Amino acid sequence: MNIPVGISARHLHLTKEDFCKIFDSENLTKYKDINQPGLYAANETVTIKGPKGMIESVRILGPFRSYSQVEISKTDSYNLGVNPPIRKSGHLQDAQTISVIGPKGSVEVPVIIANRHVHISLDEANSLGIKDDDILSVKINSEKPGVILAYFKVSEQAYKELHLDLDDANAFMLKQNDIVEISFNKNK
Amino acid sequence: MNIPVGISARHLHLTKEDFCKIFDSENLTKYKDINQPGLYAANETVTIKGPKGMIESVRILGPFRSYSQVEISKTDSYNLGVNPPIRKSGHLQDAQTISVIGPKGSVEVPVIIANRHVHISLDEANSLGIKDDDILSVKINSEKPGVILAYFKVSEQAYKELHLDLDDANAFMLKQNDIVEISFNKNK
Repeated sequence: MNIPVGISARHLHLTKEDFCKIFDSENLTKYKDINQPGLYAANETVTIKGPKGMIESVRILGPFRSYSQVEISKTDSYNLGVNPPIRKSGHLQDAQTISVIGPKGSVEVPVIIANRHVHISLDEANSLGIKDDDILSVKINSEKPGVILAYFKVSEQAYKELHLDLDDANAFMLKQNDIVEISFNKNK
Repeated sequence: MNIPVGISARHLHLTKEDFCKIFDSENLTKYKDINQPGLYAANETVTIKGPKGMIESVRILGPFRSYSQVEISKTDSYNLGVNPPIRKSGHLQDAQTISVIGPKGSVEVPVIIANRHVHISLDEANSLGIKDDDILSVKINSEKPGVILAYFKVSEQAYKELHLDLDDANAFMLKQNDIVEISFNKNK
């Protein structure tokens, strides 16, 4: 099955409570929609700061969530001086925190490297015999080709795409909306 | 067959002629040996500059070569504003140039992204039925696993290792001397 690639630059999700601590506002404002239904890039950006360095202009993705989380690449982690685990979104146990700095103040937020994952809707997952967290393989036919493992992420609503971070995208010479081929086993 | 990984940060090779244009010296001085026999990291570093940005402290690898060449990652290429081809070392046709700036002046040098390659000695290549430029596959059992394609690079003398750039290393969570598994077909 062929699906498009969505490349995730570093970004973060915030609870409303954390947002209000660092912005003089109670609401995110939409910059633009992203492919996943209901999600958007906000106009609001922050600076993230680790023991070794900082990165400015990191975008918040809205809407607010029940957890705050910064998602970076391994390259970013060396620049910041942190050692984040590779995790599914929201799985933050044992993840170290990083300073997230807004115009009004700063909060400490867990930082992860997102695992490689394919968004798929519950209806399509059911029809294909796929469960959340199932492993799949992704064949990349770029100038630097290969096969990588990823995980299905099943949501009620979803735009079907492979989410990779910038390290993966650059290692495989992939751009937004490039096409990759996925294969997987159906659950009995 | 299991072999170690050697991670290549951005670096460059220079002809003696180009070196003398940008340094007040006729000779490189050794900082430290690298794994490949006869090659070394020099004390001398340069700044590289593209249309969009520059990167300081880029190390020269010695000894001098018959061609000058800058090797960067895709991530670097975005920061510099260049679009280098993926190439074997020394294969510089159609590669755009970038400014290489030393204490005495600057020269324009072709820039490439090195292909993924495995160094192997001629004797071992012969005994394994391998020719220069043969394709192999590399299985990476890291936290972000996968299989990538690479090329054999046969030299009279060689330390057997897989050379990857920093994008590949970071995408696959690999560090210097991590072990990967290679497989390949023997030539008849």
